Amino acid sequence: MTQIPAIWLRDNCHCPECVDPVSGQKLFGITDLPIAPEASGVDETPDHVTFTFAPDGHVATFPREWLVANHPSAPATTPNPRTEDAKTLWHGASHPIPRFAWDGFLTTDDIRTACLDAVLRQGYALLHGVPVQDRTVLRVASEFGYVRTTNYGEVFEVRTEPAATNLAFTNLPITPHTDNPYRDPVPTVQLLHCLVNAAEGGDSALVDGFEAAGRLRAADPAAFRSLTTTPVTFRYRDANTDLSSTQPLIGLDAKGRVREVRFNNRSMQPVSLEPDDIEAFYAAYRAFADLLYDATAAVQFRLGPGDCVIFDNTRVLHARTGFTADGRRHLQGCYIDLDGVASNHKVLTRAESAG
Amino acid sequence: MTQIPAIWLRDNCHCPECVDPVSGQKLFGITDLPIAPEASGVDETPDHVTFTFAPDGHVATFPREWLVANHPSAPATTPNPRTEDAKTLWHGASHPIPRFAWDGFLTTDDIRTACLDAVLRQGYALLHGVPVQDRTVLRVASEFGYVRTTNYGEVFEVRTEPAATNLAFTNLPITPHTDNPYRDPVPTVQLLHCLVNAAEGGDSALVDGFEAAGRLRAADPAAFRSLTTTPVTFRYRDANTDLSSTQPLIGLDAKGRVREVRFNNRSMQPVSLEPDDIEAFYAAYRAFADLLYDATAAVQFRLGPGDCVIFDNTRVLHARTGFTADGRRHLQGCYIDLDGVASNHKVLTRAESAG
Repeated sequence: MTQIPAIWLRDNCHCPECVDPVSGQKLFGITDLPIAPEASGVDETPDHVTFTFAPDGHVATFPREWLVANHPSAPATTPNPRTEDAKTLWHGASHPIPRFAWDGFLTTDDIRTACLDAVLRQGYALLHGVPVQDRTVLRVASEFGYVRTTNYGEVFEVRTEPAATNLAFTNLPITPHTDNPYRDPVPTVQLLHCLVNAAEGGDSALVDGFEAAGRLRAADPAAFRSLTTTPVTFRYRDANTDLSSTQPLIGLDAKGRVREVRFNNRSMQPVSLEPDDIEAFYAAYRAFADLLYDATAAVQFRLGPGDCVIFDNTRVLHARTGFTADGRRHLQGCYIDLDGVASNHKVLTRAESAG
Repeated sequence: MTQIPAIWLRDNCHCPECVDPVSGQKLFGITDLPIAPEASGVDETPDHVTFTFAPDGHVATFPREWLVANHPSAPATTPNPRTEDAKTLWHGASHPIPRFAWDGFLTTDDIRTACLDAVLRQGYALLHGVPVQDRTVLRVASEFGYVRTTNYGEVFEVRTEPAATNLAFTNLPITPHTDNPYRDPVPTVQLLHCLVNAAEGGDSALVDGFEAAGRLRAADPAAFRSLTTTPVTFRYRDANTDLSSTQPLIGLDAKGRVREVRFNNRSMQPVSLEPDDIEAFYAAYRAFADLLYDATAAVQFRLGPGDCVIFDNTRVLHARTGFTADGRRHLQGCYIDLDGVASNHKVLTRAESAG
């Protein structure tokens, strides 16, 4: 264990002087530590390693298990849960649709865990048997995470509206897109709960944007690079709202892994680029659109009353076919965030190893 | 204008066939356009330029004004509003505290605009004269943006609690930090409304994290690079919650500009790095902490009953001094997001130029 630098060990001491036993929060700041501590003594037992640090004589005891699990270079193998590395990528029907009964979700921890896991790893889940009642989508949302209010309110109504300020609220077909790319932070999870779907048409489709981004990178690295580096503005405005956000269509983490896709032809604004770079950007944008709009990439289903789809809005694009103008179709939607979903999943699965 | 590639012009046509006149949303997708459109004809008048495109014969007319304002290479001079480039950076008392009367905010558009602008550009504003009533912070929040519910609920209570799961809820001093770095997306704006501050101590301070990040970059580019590329995990857990997020302490946009700072000694987890890189990371982390903890960097004030501070939690760190254990101090806080603040600001300031 001596190959771990002393500053890391000293900073991670969890004696009651260093970490509050109730909250688990660290009680000191980095500037409270000596600048270059050294491990002046090491004492090993079968279960523990104890270090004494110079110059302040502080003593830190670590369970061996903890040192192995938290060894600084170990997590190189643990993918960042928000990136493509931690996801089960899919293409069309390559993976079965993760379907769950709402009843089972509420009563059985294994079903609940599997459903949360599906949203986190596969990017979506489909619930059936949700009561067909006004605003029940909020009840569903509260089991997954914290509701995100938007300019549309807590709940938004997907149905045909006169003089709609968003084409989602018409009977037009809507191609695969992510929602609210003009918001920053963007709402990261969307729920759509079907109350009525008596229209002809109005079928649903989802596309895995991370899978498509990976495909673009493999086929055309320069195109991928254009989409990860060109800032694109999305904007939404109505009488009381004027939201805009400027970020690349494909967002990477600090290690260059895909962690966010934004794609919405309806709200995209004129792109700002030197004229010489525009044609390359447009070719890349079209290539990505071709992958996302490819019918074989989509998983397709039809929401019936009582169905509720939950999907990762930073990754999974959603679409619907057009429907008859006089057909009755009414979904209620709301947004939550991925961190709440991950927290609920963790609370259920940590039990065995909780300290 | 002919130096703008035809595909850009064609994609930005806003005739009623291309853009829905009611919602302003685009009605076509990129794959609906010809692959390599050409401007086969150009017709200019003093106010307009009209292009005819081959091969489909589509005609697009642009007001000259619009072409100038939206010329693709023009916005190179428009900074991304979320990054350091669009901010008024400050160091300690270098800029006066932006103070506003709550009354004035509610009744006078100029005051409201200036206050929203202060939050967006200076990173914070201080309201006084807010009614000293339970949960009024939500009323204030609703004038700025959309409330973000967290694991603490809609409102959180900053006061001494027995067996606190967060050290903020004790009488301990709290060094400069950003809130909820274990959330992703992190709540981007925080409000703290003072109901009581009869304790000895309990003074407030704010520090401009973007200014400190810029200072670090100037003084030690390698240290800056370590903090922009090393993923750091923050975590919060209690009986019902287990939130974690892994991102660098300093987040950059796709152009390399500072757009987010995370800093919280209490919830930071063991850092994952190859042992060889650990000492450099710790030296960088300490150098950044030295800048952030420097008393001359902070703007200091004391919240009294009826004061409410609103600050950008992606940029401005907040702190408080410890206070007497028997002293009464009670703040109510909540979170909103920067996009709502920017939207409200835009709605107020766009009026003159709205089309």
